[in-house]
Amino acid sequence: MKAVIPYKKASAKSRLSPVLNQQEREEFVELMLNQVINSLQEAGIEKIDILSPSMYGLENMRTARVLLDKNDLNEALNRYLEGAEEPILIVMADLPLLSPNHIKEITSTKEDVCIVPGKGGGTNVLFLRKPSGYRVRYYGSSFLTHCSIAAKAGQNVEIYDSFLAGTDIDEPEDLVELLIHGNGAAKDYISQKFRLEISRGRVRLAPF
Amino acid sequence: MKAVIPYKKASAKSRLSPVLNQQEREEFVELMLNQVINSLQEAGIEKIDILSPSMYGLENMRTARVLLDKNDLNEALNRYLEGAEEPILIVMADLPLLSPNHIKEITSTKEDVCIVPGKGGGTNVLFLRKPSGYRVRYYGSSFLTHCSIAAKAGQNVEIYDSFLAGTDIDEPEDLVELLIHGNGAAKDYISQKFRLEISRGRVRLAPF
Repeated sequence: MKAVIPYKKASAKSRLSPVLNQQEREEFVELMLNQVINSLQEAGIEKIDILSPSMYGLENMRTARVLLDKNDLNEALNRYLEGAEEPILIVMADLPLLSPNHIKEITSTKEDVCIVPGKGGGTNVLFLRKPSGYRVRYYGSSFLTHCSIAAKAGQNVEIYDSFLAGTDIDEPEDLVELLIHGNGAAKDYISQKFRLEISRGRVRLAPF
Repeated sequence: MKAVIPYKKASAKSRLSPVLNQQEREEFVELMLNQVINSLQEAGIEKIDILSPSMYGLENMRTARVLLDKNDLNEALNRYLEGAEEPILIVMADLPLLSPNHIKEITSTKEDVCIVPGKGGGTNVLFLRKPSGYRVRYYGSSFLTHCSIAAKAGQNVEIYDSFLAGTDIDEPEDLVELLIHGNGAAKDYISQKFRLEISRGRVRLAPF
């Protein structure tokens, strides 16, 4: 089994721009990436590839192999899957609440495919036992798309139901979940800049 | 074991008012309540209480016992817990993605307390094996509060990690999760009024 993490540091996470400037967003995505790599390693996954359109921010990467592909995310991933000769775990880089235990459970699915849905219809983690017979289509309602791609390919699907693994960090409100449920460098980075603002409804983010 | 569902129909779910008018919100919360009751029943829970400040909308309730308490949610629930002589499962009424299987897993925890965190720091489900030694404090960051109340009472906690049980329906974006992951009458109600709007980021809600 191999894991692959699509990653782009330059101008990352534009939807966090209401609360973090570009430099901060780039620092933050790098911390999240390193946390995801650590979780994969702790789960016992030895072969980890980072798929990136640029070497920016990856010049000193030692814990994973860097693969450059300037194509669009889907094209790059599908090219990667085509050549795969073993099961592939596709993990997004913005999952600081994903734990080694989640990864162990996801990769020990009995089905051909295990999908971890993200907020708003996304796909946070996708485990493909037979990657060469599968093509991904991220963006939009990719969770539903990935379920139907599996069905069309005759592959059985497990849906992995996790609040923590399901929390991708894309929008300011997601940082609230990181502050409440997280730990490690990504959480520390955010907790130096923001506090939780308690009201009668959901907890919101407030700057210090 | 008994389950208790706090419920108020009148002017419910004000944070959904950008997309549903008052009559629609009241119809919708009733559908969600009935779905939660069904899930509890299917999970084998026979004693179900609805705790409400008013009989409004509960005049014909046959599947659960209705307890009137005009006090604030926390006061009413704590009074209920004080008198409890068996384990209590507190379930919010706005959880149409909560399944019988979730309920079985939550109530078979080995710990004294099992907490299902909701979005933005909330508590969606709270199972209390020793309810008379526990006091709830909903609103604000109640997930963290409920963890620390348990710690102070010397009660062990399991955190139940579920995207589906963790999705409480409070804000328009939550309806997206209902459309993607839901089924039953509450989903049908929303899917007659809204469709998913696919873009590059998260899926959003759009009216028909």
